[in-house]
Amino acid sequence: MPGRWPVAVLGATGAVGQTFVRLLQGHPWFTVTELAASERSAGKTYREATRWIEGMFPAHLGGRAVLPCDPDVVRAPIVFSALDAAAAADIEPAFARAGRLVLSNAKCFRMEPDVPLVIPEVNAGHLAALDIQRVSRGWSGGIVTNANCAATGATIALAPLHEAFGVQQVMVVTLQALSGAGYPGVPALDALGNVIPYIADEEEKIEREIPKMLGQWTGSSFAAADLVVSAQANRVPVEHGHMTCLAVKFRTRPTRSEALEVLRAWRGASAARGLPSSPPCPLVVLTELDRPQPRRDVGMGAGMAVSVGRVRADPILDLRLVALAHNVIRGAAGGSILNAEVLAATGRLPAAPSGVE
Amino acid sequence: MPGRWPVAVLGATGAVGQTFVRLLQGHPWFTVTELAASERSAGKTYREATRWIEGMFPAHLGGRAVLPCDPDVVRAPIVFSALDAAAAADIEPAFARAGRLVLSNAKCFRMEPDVPLVIPEVNAGHLAALDIQRVSRGWSGGIVTNANCAATGATIALAPLHEAFGVQQVMVVTLQALSGAGYPGVPALDALGNVIPYIADEEEKIEREIPKMLGQWTGSSFAAADLVVSAQANRVPVEHGHMTCLAVKFRTRPTRSEALEVLRAWRGASAARGLPSSPPCPLVVLTELDRPQPRRDVGMGAGMAVSVGRVRADPILDLRLVALAHNVIRGAAGGSILNAEVLAATGRLPAAPSGVE
Amino acid sequence: MPGRWPVAVLGATGAVGQTFVRLLQGHPWFTVTELAASERSAGKTYREATRWIEGMFPAHLGGRAVLPCDPDVVRAPIVFSALDAAAAADIEPAFARAGRLVLSNAKCFRMEPDVPLVIPEVNAGHLAALDIQRVSRGWSGGIVTNANCAATGATIALAPLHEAFGVQQVMVVTLQALSGAGYPGVPALDALGNVIPYIADEEEKIEREIPKMLGQWTGSSFAAADLVVSAQANRVPVEHGHMTCLAVKFRTRPTRSEALEVLRAWRGASAARGLPSSPPCPLVVLTELDRPQPRRDVGMGAGMAVSVGRVRADPILDLRLVALAHNVIRGAAGGSILNAEVLAATGRLPAAPSGVE
Amino acid sequence: MPGRWPVAVLGATGAVGQTFVRLLQGHPWFTVTELAASERSAGKTYREATRWIEGMFPAHLGGRAVLPCDPDVVRAPIVFSALDAAAAADIEPAFARAGRLVLSNAKCFRMEPDVPLVIPEVNAGHLAALDIQRVSRGWSGGIVTNANCAATGATIALAPLHEAFGVQQVMVVTLQALSGAGYPGVPALDALGNVIPYIADEEEKIEREIPKMLGQWTGSSFAAADLVVSAQANRVPVEHGHMTCLAVKFRTRPTRSEALEVLRAWRGASAARGLPSSPPCPLVVLTELDRPQPRRDVGMGAGMAVSVGRVRADPILDLRLVALAHNVIRGAAGGSILNAEVLAATGRLPAAPSGVE
Repeated sequence: MPGRWPVAVLGATGAVGQTFVRLLQGHPWFTVTELAASERSAGKTYREATRWIEGMFPAHLGGRAVLPCDPDVVRAPIVFSALDAAAAADIEPAFARAGRLVLSNAKCFRMEPDVPLVIPEVNAGHLAALDIQRVSRGWSGGIVTNANCAATGATIALAPLHEAFGVQQVMVVTLQALSGAGYPGVPALDALGNVIPYIADEEEKIEREIPKMLGQWTGSSFAAADLVVSAQANRVPVEHGHMTCLAVKFRTRPTRSEALEVLRAWRGASAARGLPSSPPCPLVVLTELDRPQPRRDVGMGAGMAVSVGRVRADPILDLRLVALAHNVIRGAAGGSILNAEVLAATGRLPAAPSGVE
Repeated sequence: MPGRWPVAVLGATGAVGQTFVRLLQGHPWFTVTELAASERSAGKTYREATRWIEGMFPAHLGGRAVLPCDPDVVRAPIVFSALDAAAAADIEPAFARAGRLVLSNAKCFRMEPDVPLVIPEVNAGHLAALDIQRVSRGWSGGIVTNANCAATGATIALAPLHEAFGVQQVMVVTLQALSGAGYPGVPALDALGNVIPYIADEEEKIEREIPKMLGQWTGSSFAAADLVVSAQANRVPVEHGHMTCLAVKFRTRPTRSEALEVLRAWRGASAARGLPSSPPCPLVVLTELDRPQPRRDVGMGAGMAVSVGRVRADPILDLRLVALAHNVIRGAAGGSILNAEVLAATGRLPAAPSGVE
Repeated sequence: MPGRWPVAVLGATGAVGQTFVRLLQGHPWFTVTELAASERSAGKTYREATRWIEGMFPAHLGGRAVLPCDPDVVRAPIVFSALDAAAAADIEPAFARAGRLVLSNAKCFRMEPDVPLVIPEVNAGHLAALDIQRVSRGWSGGIVTNANCAATGATIALAPLHEAFGVQQVMVVTLQALSGAGYPGVPALDALGNVIPYIADEEEKIEREIPKMLGQWTGSSFAAADLVVSAQANRVPVEHGHMTCLAVKFRTRPTRSEALEVLRAWRGASAARGLPSSPPCPLVVLTELDRPQPRRDVGMGAGMAVSVGRVRADPILDLRLVALAHNVIRGAAGGSILNAEVLAATGRLPAAPSGVE
Repeated sequence: MPGRWPVAVLGATGAVGQTFVRLLQGHPWFTVTELAASERSAGKTYREATRWIEGMFPAHLGGRAVLPCDPDVVRAPIVFSALDAAAAADIEPAFARAGRLVLSNAKCFRMEPDVPLVIPEVNAGHLAALDIQRVSRGWSGGIVTNANCAATGATIALAPLHEAFGVQQVMVVTLQALSGAGYPGVPALDALGNVIPYIADEEEKIEREIPKMLGQWTGSSFAAADLVVSAQANRVPVEHGHMTCLAVKFRTRPTRSEALEVLRAWRGASAARGLPSSPPCPLVVLTELDRPQPRRDVGMGAGMAVSVGRVRADPILDLRLVALAHNVIRGAAGGSILNAEVLAATGRLPAAPSGVE
């Protein structure tokens, strides 16, 4: 298949791994050539090892052997990692050391001072940190991370407002979907007709990742944005789609209509436009009073657009709004793939094959 | 039935009306003698007019004629009103003028300068405004209101903190149950696996009712508490139980343990203790990380206790916490009944029958 | 837009009407030129009159005036009717009399002796009754109906088995989705975490429609299949997808593998193949033990394929199986559109425009 | 605590074990003195070992050590077993051998020729098999089982009809609640808005247990009732309450009103009446068209009554009806406790303490 990069999926049997496989079917630049998972699955076929949770199982991959997550066995130069943090901590550096570019969903390396934490429309420039990372760690490959699934939607909604008005404080209350917990994830008896006002480590991730992403790469280090985030995380009985209720204080207080204008006009970094996974518009502003809603709006831009609504003044801070993002697509696998596409488009992928673009 | 006040329920066929009927079964002080509803139901029996939505229909009331909401027809001195705002606007004053005491769930009169908006544990003293109300309006009866169902839980959770530390700002994000919308209420196709980030007029009610309830009756007028509330309201697929995620700024910042101590020690106004509908403790502090949860905790104190949890510092304001209240019991019918009990216990009920202690 | 039939949608603002509009977007043969609804909506724009319940509102139709359901106003030769039975009883014949071909979802005319009740793969031959209908009723147009949404899936699953082995008795227990009740439909408080073992008139429809569809058009009348259906209908908290648990007695008892072979080989009537809305295969046999499931399988064949599973012997009758169909697509709007496509392909549409192949 | 039997709960940390603990709080005849669970929990306190899933944790038991399931350690003469089948296979006989009476929820011994499978109202007489069991197995204690949770409700609904008219064939389609799968049980992503048409081994249990329970103990063996059951099992997103849609063929065909009369008149075996856990009436006949419903009717008789509705003729067999039972109470822990109460009342408990009854 000339002109496509061979890619591997690590953690291919889990929920996010399955989404990688699903989204990469028919991808114009990447072809899944290897599927890897934990020891428990290694040796089985992909069909045997996987409890497929959405839509039709990709029959053409069913007979593929599931490989161990070992860079001596998995040979693809590009590696999408859906590993959990415990596994990722050792495996992802091993692949980076072995010259592969790892697109990681795990939390382990997101806050490292030389690891880019990237949403292309927001901070594609952070990818330049890869050069420092390689030098400082002696890796021939590298690790690029994408953010916590709830932080992602909030960050995309905040980015244009931060550019225009300077965010100082953000109160975030999340209503997060079940798929964010993976599979089997939340027991039905905990979820049905219920809300759980706690998700382990989630609030901490949201509070630290947003400032990093809204900050700058200085050429030698990341300068976090000078803003404070307070997060309260809730699990709600929704399949897909993390909602965030935001209240924001700015350096320059915008009116509601100034805020709406900025949100509507935003298209994100030019490096992120026109790629295979780019949505037509990264931010969709809804004006109906009761939107966005997970069930109705989570599919915007094939799951890659963030929808915002209920933009209005706040009597304590300056502005309130609601943002919704597809946690498994934009907030996980789709975000990683878009990161890889930006790397491809900017010539940062290892061993670029002939014929791309 | 000597020793009990005869009471009527207005709007008896709807969701809150049914809860009145259910909670008043076997009440030691009050006996439902009349059921009234809109013209559409009048003339039918209660069984014919009612689509009973929870538990067993009260068979002994099934053959009772549903009366029109007319003080010339309905004769009970105490009237529990589950009318919606449109109907309540005219009917409740008509009953008050005719000498009845109206315990109202409607929003119409809550913010009137001479109408008490009462949660007995919090502001039983506001009931003194009834005397002014009677004089100024020339009513021989009166109207006492209880608060919006989401404001109720937040207010009870805030009351002890306000007493101790002085609340200045409160950010409220609600996750509200379906039963708050009455019956038929929210269509299942809107609710199932979804969140709706909007409830008409709810945020305004929360923002204005909390300061009134946390304020003082000066003897001639209400002095609202000097604090600002910001509310964001969401509907979630939960049957009963409104959760509120709170972030609070105080005049005197408490530590987490100081706040917990105050919450745990609080028993509310003495006038509200030991009444038939009083919970053993109006506020239950949960320390498990993932509580309160609507499905598991909404029944605390037979639906009359508010449970709070996740008390912790906030990086922007001072403190975060989560509060949960049963919206149909504590936040509606049960709250009204407790208001009537306080009035009875303090000698403010019209025509007190013999034998009530 | 040369080469396409102009079509109207009656009842365009309701749930099934919206699905017609959605499915007809970009249809190669039909173009929606008129939207009609009840008096309540007439005069408004489509955007004003419609509470859009799934996905993005079709912006290009938003400004279109909603017309009354009057054949003097609505001029399209092909009319898709999503009217409820009360409205359809008068309006559909009025359109047929006025020369239009009405594709009806209503129950009123399904059992008429000269009205085809059609699932193209199963009984496309019934469409020949249109000729008799026109003569007997003096209509220049006609009415073609599609079946009850729960009967549709069961009929498609039974058709190949009936052809091969002769169905004698069918026990049907349904688990039906919320969208089958339209919008607003079932109140969330009735649906959430609950099952309702009753749907008005549903069991009767299932019991009488299946034999008609599995029967024959003799040239002058319908000869129902000689089989008895027993139906028990349940509403379950599922968004889309009616499941039917079937137990079947045959004239010739098949083994499980004979039944599976027949189900797998079936492609339906040739007249129904290769049309714009035809699924690749009308019946998809699943072999996983726990399939079909509404959430995972309802989208098969873009909602037009029926999935069956759990085929196994029955200790009382002969065979048990489970069938699943998308009630709004295959069981309503999509079924009507496929009926129209068969009529187009067989030269039965009035006033065929130029350019249709 | 004189006058009460000390009892132990095996598998006390799981869902059914927790229900045992909850239902036995304040029981007039039994006091929980020991809590036992698997090796994983042994050594912890009950609070540490248990993820409490419903209502308030029983604080007075929180500090109790969780014991291993070993009859040398656990000393109570009465043992309620909520063990899963794998554990029960060895542990329950060990306790019986050691002289304890085991009330078992596991499937392992239900179909043994000398083990009673009992619903007291239906077949209390089967308990006489205990004498044979002790002799044949050389046990000084014994094992009494209760039925599969879905079989229980169907059996109670069928019992009076079988007595009066002789059941020959029963088609059972179940809609079973999530709590039937224990905790963590079904993942929320499988359950939410979905139906799963398969529960491992459930149909087999229903098909074999109903005939045993409706049969007779001859004095030396069980004579199963001469009837055939066909079962189709479905999991639905309901918290508690297994519904069964039944179609029944009888030796003597009753009219609908004859069947209703028999169902209404039935009170079950006299041995089962007036016990602490006996519901006022074991069978509640509902006449509303859309009942029983799990959410509204599962609590009948504190979870110990079965509600039936929709009794009507069937065009293939004779009669259709719907039955609902609380799967965790009547169908599991509550059923076991009622079995123990019958044994106590009939003098079959080992080492009856002074002062009971």
